[in-house]
Amino acid sequence: MVPDPFERLRSLGFDDDAARVLADHFVDAEERGKAGHGLSRVDWLETLDDVDSAARPLRTLDEPGYEQWDGNGALGYLTLDAIVRSTLEDPPPRARVIVGRRTFPTGMLGYWVRRLAEGGLVAALTATSPRRLGSPAGGPKLTGTNPLAIAIPSSDGDPVVADVSMGKVTYGAVLAGLADEADLVPFGEESSHKAFALAVGLQLLVDALAGEEHGVVLVVARPEHDPVPAFRALAGGVRLPGD
Amino acid sequence: MVPDPFERLRSLGFDDDAARVLADHFVDAEERGKAGHGLSRVDWLETLDDVDSAARPLRTLDEPGYEQWDGNGALGYLTLDAIVRSTLEDPPPRARVIVGRRTFPTGMLGYWVRRLAEGGLVAALTATSPRRLGSPAGGPKLTGTNPLAIAIPSSDGDPVVADVSMGKVTYGAVLAGLADEADLVPFGEESSHKAFALAVGLQLLVDALAGEEHGVVLVVARPEHDPVPAFRALAGGVRLPGD
Repeated sequence: MVPDPFERLRSLGFDDDAARVLADHFVDAEERGKAGHGLSRVDWLETLDDVDSAARPLRTLDEPGYEQWDGNGALGYLTLDAIVRSTLEDPPPRARVIVGRRTFPTGMLGYWVRRLAEGGLVAALTATSPRRLGSPAGGPKLTGTNPLAIAIPSSDGDPVVADVSMGKVTYGAVLAGLADEADLVPFGEESSHKAFALAVGLQLLVDALAGEEHGVVLVVARPEHDPVPAFRALAGGVRLPGD
Repeated sequence: MVPDPFERLRSLGFDDDAARVLADHFVDAEERGKAGHGLSRVDWLETLDDVDSAARPLRTLDEPGYEQWDGNGALGYLTLDAIVRSTLEDPPPRARVIVGRRTFPTGMLGYWVRRLAEGGLVAALTATSPRRLGSPAGGPKLTGTNPLAIAIPSSDGDPVVADVSMGKVTYGAVLAGLADEADLVPFGEESSHKAFALAVGLQLLVDALAGEEHGVVLVVARPEHDPVPAFRALAGGVRLPGD
């Protein structure tokens, strides 16, 4: 049983709604074994003296098929929660690209796309973070670990949720003491140029749309087909991402 | 100097425009050292007896921020070329999600997003193909090699183009005799569960939007920022994807 950090977050000045949003994310991370995105982040928040617990994100553009949000000083978790809630309340007729400026930290990206898929939407989400990965060929740190999370709803129950960081380990795992900072390299060993290329592509995609500060790009769409049940049947007992 | 396969493609029944589109793609693949997507594909097309050289794709939906195309029996290369041309002629005010049904084979995805980025658009493209990758834990082949290509335009010249297949090798490399079919596994060695998760996510994303037959999902957006020059400066002499 993971202890609920709600009261600790309330003590940091977050109101009931925000403390609940944050606590739910951290507890879910612990329960999924992703301690780097879990309660260690509450410890971390408690060490910061510049968290504006009253800040809330703003939707700065709302056009057909496109939205832009600004974190406006809020924690990225709260910005993604606001985007997810707003998208589920008003889903696109077909698809929507949603850009979050100044949106950091964002935690376990699978958490946000899972909620969208549980609400019936296909979702793909990426996010930037401090530069921690360099080229396998050497040189400076160039990109964040820049995860890509993709969730697909299913008529037979749970969505499939892939959530992949381009780092061999996450910074969260380093923070939680579960991994060594020296392993903050692109994953893939002899193929790590591939993870590096993905990290660069995702970095510049977000930078081009959201600007210099860390941000997110989310694509949501209504599914036209229901491929998961047949895929699970084909997979047989093989564990699928997010299970 | 790569021999131009234009006349060979004309001999297969393609008209001047289609033969030029196909030849340009295959020659570019050869010049980039991606022989598996190059002239070996002309050899391969010459072995097929069911290529409908007169078939052309159709745009089946055109809504704000969303398009759906149908390959309509045409080679996937021709469908992507039509999507790229149409998108460059009529770019979205902000962003657009474009789904291509029955769109296969699609070749070197970096080629298509590079053209979009040279025309000023940020682009991300994925495509499905026959199931050739299984879970690192075993079991049946579940996904295509499902590349993800991302291109970002730059005010200082060449775009950055990441183009990553989730396979340790591509099927094209196997076709071209450059790799062994046994290496058609998710890339990443001890981290290959990550490439497998990405392959599954991209597979089901495309399947959910484009249906059972192989298809593509493309996201294009107008950049709001120009991050590549500063990124290249930070990278110094480090080679970036697509260079």
